[in-house]
Amino acid sequence: MSIFEKADFDARVQAAKDRMLARGMDVLIATDPSNMHYLTGYDGWSFYVPQMVVVAQELAEPLWIGRGIDENGARATTFLPDDNIVAYSDRYVQASDCHPMDVAADALRARKLDGGVIAVEMDGYYFSPRGYHALQEGMPNARFADATGLVNWIRAVKSDKELAVMRQAARILEHVMDTAFRAIEPGVRQCDAAAEIMRAQVQGTSDHGGDYPAIVPMIPSGPGTSTPHLTWSDAPFNANELTVMELAGCRLRYHTPMSRTLYLGEPPQVMAETAAIVDEGTQAALEVAKPGNTCADVEAAWRTTIARHGLEKESRVGYPIGLSYPPDWGERTMSLRPSDTTVLEPGMCFHFMPGIWQDDWGIEISEPFRVTEQGAVKFADVPRGLRKAV
Amino acid sequence: MSIFEKADFDARVQAAKDRMLARGMDVLIATDPSNMHYLTGYDGWSFYVPQMVVVAQELAEPLWIGRGIDENGARATTFLPDDNIVAYSDRYVQASDCHPMDVAADALRARKLDGGVIAVEMDGYYFSPRGYHALQEGMPNARFADATGLVNWIRAVKSDKELAVMRQAARILEHVMDTAFRAIEPGVRQCDAAAEIMRAQVQGTSDHGGDYPAIVPMIPSGPGTSTPHLTWSDAPFNANELTVMELAGCRLRYHTPMSRTLYLGEPPQVMAETAAIVDEGTQAALEVAKPGNTCADVEAAWRTTIARHGLEKESRVGYPIGLSYPPDWGERTMSLRPSDTTVLEPGMCFHFMPGIWQDDWGIEISEPFRVTEQGAVKFADVPRGLRKAV
Repeated sequence: MSIFEKADFDARVQAAKDRMLARGMDVLIATDPSNMHYLTGYDGWSFYVPQMVVVAQELAEPLWIGRGIDENGARATTFLPDDNIVAYSDRYVQASDCHPMDVAADALRARKLDGGVIAVEMDGYYFSPRGYHALQEGMPNARFADATGLVNWIRAVKSDKELAVMRQAARILEHVMDTAFRAIEPGVRQCDAAAEIMRAQVQGTSDHGGDYPAIVPMIPSGPGTSTPHLTWSDAPFNANELTVMELAGCRLRYHTPMSRTLYLGEPPQVMAETAAIVDEGTQAALEVAKPGNTCADVEAAWRTTIARHGLEKESRVGYPIGLSYPPDWGERTMSLRPSDTTVLEPGMCFHFMPGIWQDDWGIEISEPFRVTEQGAVKFADVPRGLRKAV
Repeated sequence: MSIFEKADFDARVQAAKDRMLARGMDVLIATDPSNMHYLTGYDGWSFYVPQMVVVAQELAEPLWIGRGIDENGARATTFLPDDNIVAYSDRYVQASDCHPMDVAADALRARKLDGGVIAVEMDGYYFSPRGYHALQEGMPNARFADATGLVNWIRAVKSDKELAVMRQAARILEHVMDTAFRAIEPGVRQCDAAAEIMRAQVQGTSDHGGDYPAIVPMIPSGPGTSTPHLTWSDAPFNANELTVMELAGCRLRYHTPMSRTLYLGEPPQVMAETAAIVDEGTQAALEVAKPGNTCADVEAAWRTTIARHGLEKESRVGYPIGLSYPPDWGERTMSLRPSDTTVLEPGMCFHFMPGIWQDDWGIEISEPFRVTEQGAVKFADVPRGLRKAV
């Protein structure tokens, strides 16, 4: 299924080993499904039970450790040799008297990988305190270190192949946004619009089928637009109300997310003006999103522009995007905010997401973009206007 | 949005306090989104950042602690008074120098709730080892205890209102399975069938709109049926191959999942026979799934029945279902397996899921059911046959 070849995964594993070496790490246990996929290609909705990819300086290729019924999934989606696929019995699944991480510790001990520095993703998804304790108890000779973000940072700069997949995701996104724009009408149930949106996301285009985005459609409406993470209900959309649409195109697990906001009717002046300020701030931000400038520079360009119109925003205005699994399509490395001095490089990809949330309404109009030598290039071409005639 | 009233949530919080008292716990920090929802009604796709519901013996009502931009979401979806909603600033989001759990510890200290036994969900979703350490450092006077499953176990027996919602989910499931059965045809791209399935899931019925299931459609096809958790690709379905469909109906976050398997053409004898054995084993299992019998009894009825035909299965044959968020629609308490001696009670709901995975093919034909005084009652009425003429 993957367009990536063994050489791509070998290079990624080597990059991880290089960063591990620089930080004195002998073994890395990657439990974030996005990092597992990035290192090996492993794909499947099996991350609701503990599973991991183990990179060790002393091993030519990583280990995949997971549940027995997912072993064939590891064979189907990775290039790993059979000896590197380790499965635990179903008796370890959701049991109070034993834990899958017991098996992981056994597997590392059996390969004499338990004597050095073992790095784990202390703040990643799907790695629990109990799992961590089981690793510690099963490998008393190991010293543990934190590798949160180590693989995520390698993912920050995309290869040409990855950028090609993200452009395919952007074509899907354009189809999705067009579908959403048409589907949201006064009297239509929110769930029916969400249904058309999800159909478009997964259908994709005739050239490139869609994958499931890491986040379901977020389409808060009316007062619900004052907060970003409500999903949908059976209630109908109403005329003369705002509806926010935060939606992604996803291709082979790579995402291009975007927000648009519709007003069903003629928007009140304050909302139209806010949308115009967001447009101006976005343009200013994207103009400085070029190699050599920092994440903070991008946010500052936004902030000073909107401040001239008396608008303020506390929360960050964007984050890196690419490969991801639920619950988040962000990569959890950089943030477009004042404290982040990371220097932008060509191949980095962001969701510039300057949501404005007031007490009882909100506007989200965002852009996914990639950094090139020439500056920011938007992934998708979708009208930014607020008004929908009804 | 919720059909549940303040009295329902008050009773659930009291049940949690009773169980906490019996185990010497002063404070419970619930980080599993399903448990947060169960205790307060909180709903939103915000679980990609740390958030929690805090139940304390000394507080009349729980606290919700989460990200600032989700504060209005907590107001919109819970009955909590404003004083019980605590938000952290965006500078804590995905930062390396501070953690949202620092704010949680501050909030508990400010309310003098940091001096006793604080229980956390050590093996739940979305609670990281780093988050746990931040709590420990921020509340040095507390003793920490493990409350994994404490709220989940309260959820195991459903109220009449919950059962009514699950029956609505089952009507959605029937619509979804009918849609899937029609959509899967030779030459159709897997993604296009998945798109129709997801549309049906979210559309729901004319009476009851659908919610997003906690797991996306799993429709492995051909050799992919040898493992349960592959999603879809652009490849077309082929005649004379198996396709598994593991799909749920979801209503107000309550799930009824089900598996069916299609053979596009005339199934080979071994597959038809295996499906017949699964039918017989399922019938035997459901006959003993009544109050007073145990989870192990149900599995034993299945196992001894299929053993008479020379079939064996190592992995568990089912789990409890109900309220859930991604990544899993199971409740992670009981398992239908030999080691689980939990006694069944009326109101418990299960997915009886006896997947058979061979080296290069597999069959999944399952049933969601509820336990009543009279025995097991299937939630949905969907044909179990394997064959689809093409």
